[in-house]
Amino acid sequence: MGRVLGALGAVTVLLFGVGGSAGAEDGYRLWLRAEGGGADVTLPCDEPSETLTIARDELSAALPHGTVRFATSSCRGEGSPRLPRQRDVGEEGYRIAMDGEGYVITARSDVGALYGTYRLIRAVSTGEAMPEDGLTEQPAKRLRLLNHWDNLDRHVERGYSGESIWNWHLLPDYLDPRYTDYARANASIGINGVSLTNVNADATVLTPPFIEKVAALAGVFRPYGIKVYLTARFSAPIEIGGLETADPLDGEVAAWWKAKADEIYAAIPDFGGFLVKANSEGQPGPQDYGRTHADGANMLARAVEPHGGIVMWRAFVYSAEEPEDRVKQAYTEFVPLDGKFADNVLVQVKNGPLDFQPREPFSPLFGAMPKTPLLAELQITKEYLGFATHLSYLGPLWSEALTADTHARGKDSLVADRVDGLAGVANIGTDRNWSGSQFAQANWYAFGRLAWDPKAEPEAIARDWVRQTFTDDAEAVDRIVGMMMRSREAVVDYMTPLGLTHLMGTGHHYGPAPWVDDLGRADWTPYYYHRATKDAVGFDRTESGSDAVSQYHEPLASQWNEVETTPEELLLWFHRVPWDHEVKDGSTLWQSLVAHYDRGVAEVQAMRETWAGLEGKIDEDRYAQTADFLAIQEKEARWWRDASIAYWQSVNGLDLPEGARPPEHDLAWYKAQSFPYAPGN
Amino acid sequence: MGRVLGALGAVTVLLFGVGGSAGAEDGYRLWLRAEGGGADVTLPCDEPSETLTIARDELSAALPHGTVRFATSSCRGEGSPRLPRQRDVGEEGYRIAMDGEGYVITARSDVGALYGTYRLIRAVSTGEAMPEDGLTEQPAKRLRLLNHWDNLDRHVERGYSGESIWNWHLLPDYLDPRYTDYARANASIGINGVSLTNVNADATVLTPPFIEKVAALAGVFRPYGIKVYLTARFSAPIEIGGLETADPLDGEVAAWWKAKADEIYAAIPDFGGFLVKANSEGQPGPQDYGRTHADGANMLARAVEPHGGIVMWRAFVYSAEEPEDRVKQAYTEFVPLDGKFADNVLVQVKNGPLDFQPREPFSPLFGAMPKTPLLAELQITKEYLGFATHLSYLGPLWSEALTADTHARGKDSLVADRVDGLAGVANIGTDRNWSGSQFAQANWYAFGRLAWDPKAEPEAIARDWVRQTFTDDAEAVDRIVGMMMRSREAVVDYMTPLGLTHLMGTGHHYGPAPWVDDLGRADWTPYYYHRATKDAVGFDRTESGSDAVSQYHEPLASQWNEVETTPEELLLWFHRVPWDHEVKDGSTLWQSLVAHYDRGVAEVQAMRETWAGLEGKIDEDRYAQTADFLAIQEKEARWWRDASIAYWQSVNGLDLPEGARPPEHDLAWYKAQSFPYAPGN
Repeated sequence: MGRVLGALGAVTVLLFGVGGSAGAEDGYRLWLRAEGGGADVTLPCDEPSETLTIARDELSAALPHGTVRFATSSCRGEGSPRLPRQRDVGEEGYRIAMDGEGYVITARSDVGALYGTYRLIRAVSTGEAMPEDGLTEQPAKRLRLLNHWDNLDRHVERGYSGESIWNWHLLPDYLDPRYTDYARANASIGINGVSLTNVNADATVLTPPFIEKVAALAGVFRPYGIKVYLTARFSAPIEIGGLETADPLDGEVAAWWKAKADEIYAAIPDFGGFLVKANSEGQPGPQDYGRTHADGANMLARAVEPHGGIVMWRAFVYSAEEPEDRVKQAYTEFVPLDGKFADNVLVQVKNGPLDFQPREPFSPLFGAMPKTPLLAELQITKEYLGFATHLSYLGPLWSEALTADTHARGKDSLVADRVDGLAGVANIGTDRNWSGSQFAQANWYAFGRLAWDPKAEPEAIARDWVRQTFTDDAEAVDRIVGMMMRSREAVVDYMTPLGLTHLMGTGHHYGPAPWVDDLGRADWTPYYYHRATKDAVGFDRTESGSDAVSQYHEPLASQWNEVETTPEELLLWFHRVPWDHEVKDGSTLWQSLVAHYDRGVAEVQAMRETWAGLEGKIDEDRYAQTADFLAIQEKEARWWRDASIAYWQSVNGLDLPEGARPPEHDLAWYKAQSFPYAPGN
Repeated sequence: MGRVLGALGAVTVLLFGVGGSAGAEDGYRLWLRAEGGGADVTLPCDEPSETLTIARDELSAALPHGTVRFATSSCRGEGSPRLPRQRDVGEEGYRIAMDGEGYVITARSDVGALYGTYRLIRAVSTGEAMPEDGLTEQPAKRLRLLNHWDNLDRHVERGYSGESIWNWHLLPDYLDPRYTDYARANASIGINGVSLTNVNADATVLTPPFIEKVAALAGVFRPYGIKVYLTARFSAPIEIGGLETADPLDGEVAAWWKAKADEIYAAIPDFGGFLVKANSEGQPGPQDYGRTHADGANMLARAVEPHGGIVMWRAFVYSAEEPEDRVKQAYTEFVPLDGKFADNVLVQVKNGPLDFQPREPFSPLFGAMPKTPLLAELQITKEYLGFATHLSYLGPLWSEALTADTHARGKDSLVADRVDGLAGVANIGTDRNWSGSQFAQANWYAFGRLAWDPKAEPEAIARDWVRQTFTDDAEAVDRIVGMMMRSREAVVDYMTPLGLTHLMGTGHHYGPAPWVDDLGRADWTPYYYHRATKDAVGFDRTESGSDAVSQYHEPLASQWNEVETTPEELLLWFHRVPWDHEVKDGSTLWQSLVAHYDRGVAEVQAMRETWAGLEGKIDEDRYAQTADFLAIQEKEARWWRDASIAYWQSVNGLDLPEGARPPEHDLAWYKAQSFPYAPGN
């Protein structure tokens, strides 16, 4: 039996201190709001560090009617662990117990106690029942990182939330309070690292003035348990080092990186390490010198290893010159290197083998590199799922990938068990609401929660988020969570159903453009992926086609090799089928395709109606912004449907299924739409 | 005898509705804060328009303990003027009278009543004594515009406050509440027009999708009395019209512009007109076809005239190929065109003949185009005065220019009397504090106040701003106003004293670089302006030099022709003098130069001390941000001083004056500093 925590009062005590009227609401406070309840809490140790002071302040703000005290008995004095050793609690874990006077938080480290603090606040906010014998938790994964794709000119690649929050010009002298608010938000969901710069890297960040700026940010994040990482431009030895080469096997090059690492660690003793995109989409890398990814990664790894640093080397590779099916190439390039990476290297693998589409099968690399530490890279920013405006909760997408069974060691070889952590491409920018829209915040939140526990239930996470962010009105919560849980599939339905993929506009990736077939590289065109002709559509990835299925273990390889045993949601990913192919419900592929589009649009309409019914149950400002964005989403969902249908019809020559509405415009109109200033490009 | 308005209570009622804690403060609310006082106010007409409803809401928020009512007697019914005719009150003027029950606001138009409303609120905020027989006011100038140098990709040229606030991607469907807050802020200081786009124009804004977005913004601004203007890319007929030429005398081109204007006015019936930069710094223009500025302006003027629109044609021209002294060229090019412009064209002239330097003499065009309507263009964003961080109140700079006597028609031919209005290059962006720093807001405010009344006293404006923005503690107000009033001269002192000019870093214009002498164009180099040699420094603009003095009327031409009668603050602008030239206080030029630098740095130190003494008198958040920025300003003031001295010494070989501190680094160090990501470039 549990005990309901705290008092869920209507008083809103604000944790983020910024100006404005007490009645208005712009989402700046994210999910960190207080219930005004009361709970007495004991934190470890009466000589509080900066971290424990933060913990106390969080509790005082969140539960202002209670008291916070520090336990004198748990300080062991200078030089010895200040906190009692907990057997089942790792370095970042905590225990929340109850005694007659309230709650007692203990942990192995101050940051663990801080995590326990946020956990307790969450429990109070959501009205969670606390087990009688308390709560002991620790993160399942040690690396829980955000990856910002922020350029030094403050443009955010694939960013739809304003500019980069890093104000390089004013750093290191001016520390914007927003950096602290950022750290708090992340710590509250267990994020423990951030890579500050775009994977399309700029060596300038490794120059002395910028190292000083980065060190200033690291100082803000440190008490929140957040380490700083940087992207390493592989050609930096040439660009800023004055060397003639960046060959990782060149002694001068290795020495340069070693000295650079030493320089960084002198300024930032707990610097996390480097994230690298190499020999991908034009980025420099070891292959420029006939070396392997392992050669490159290991050279960098040796430079940071003495300092405890790591190297995260991205496996997002595909070459226009390589004739192999794009989605096979990363496997082809990396599997031979399994076991060849140094211990402090992790290979960072996108959830799917293509590129963050609304649905992809999991990447076969997760089942094929047993000797190499891996990270799963997820995309929080909605590059392919409607930018900031479309409401699309990605918890289900990520959970689908993380709980996928690779069958690498027989059954129950989940992707989640194969990785040492998660990296999330951030959706954060200078917009007042951080993420471009209110509901985009939910994806940031869910990412943190899944990084902590990749097997957590996305619906439970959504429920927590809604309660922490909007309301604890039970019916409202149910309705909002319902919208969220159906929203990912809605996007799949109106953009890329039935295993279709990569049909977006060129460059900016905004809106539909399935007709594009004439870019510099075939593997950048939508046509490459759907290959639609008068008779058929889809990419044959079976043994008779590109044989991408063989990169998966049995029974998946066999299941996906046959249309009959392929889940319909991946049909056109793995198979090429005629337009009149009969799908599971007895309709034709064409009829089903149009039905999916209509279902997607209908789901957005339903979301709008549900949301309209919530007016008055949440604050007017966030209600209105979300209502406006849902209207945009409906307009764009129709656009995706109509443009796609117009195109498919121009290829297959088929009439619309009975009762289906024709596209609003003709294909030429859709092709003529141009968006020179769509954001994030 | 006046009567003190309202009650200056300590309760802060916030007018801008955005989320946050009631205790914290980020400057978002600008100068629109309430005193919680009470005053009963009567507005015109009981069938309130949107504008009058806004006025009532402003009063209710600002003076919540009073009541607001509408006067039933002043509505005259459909179709006839709804408000009583006021003899001494123009279309935008108002009268604030007092009766037994409070205040009565009347006006010729609803917008006039809105201006009266803000005027009353200001009076209450600042504790102003209202004359017994009330207040009747109207703007001295009809055109009071902001010019945003915002690009469609949201980069703001010379912007140090984040991105462009115009979210083109979400327009027209989503109207960010910030647009309304922007409109309120501007209406409160009498701004009645905004040019949305960069003068380095992009024809895309004239395409149908963007016209729709612009119309949406115009709809937000309209009830606040603010018209929208756009910059017209002169080559638009080619770029978006498909024509072969943009020759203004070509019939097809004129027809294209006419149709384009008609299209814009169909969407925006009160569109203001076009702002044009042509044949300047690479922009296309009529001279590309052997036509004059008047040819180009008049063609556009004819296109907008039927709709009541205007054309503002910038006189910021200078050519690298033209050997004449850069500061003479605008006069040379435009004076022959005096009287040749259509009635609805205004020539827009920067305050000085160079480019917004900390100090310049006024532009001779103000005294030389008597037959042409003129606008004065001022720069609110501090491109040359320290970006957003340096505290530099520009009221004195603008007043100096506006109250300068051109002597065009004998004495008292002030610049202010020669112009039909003011255009201010905005310092507004997505930063939470709008303008990049708290004190940068003061320049936006002062611009509006001077556009309304160009002869207003900058100190009185500063006093109002401080009282409306920070505090009404008399001592604190005095100290802050004192800082502000000395701050412009401080920047002159540490950057460009004694008439020196244009010594900033290349491209980004950040920091000092007086040594630069080797760019693509000589007139872009600092060296062009100071011409320092071992023996002398300064630009001879007298009759024996470039004779720029002759572009001014007597007695100025003669006064500035002689060193003895030239104000020391313009010495090196007009004269070339030896380093040992004796200045007015008996010291040498060199000694005086170093003394000015030291005085500038000392003034910043003094500002820091003054500010430190204000801790506790204003809110902690804005106090802290300003303190941090003042520290940056001191660091940069020293840098300007030290780098400049190091350079001058390398040229003149002179020892430092007795007691002067040597530069911290050597010249090579200063030359090596590089800022690839300085903002606004």
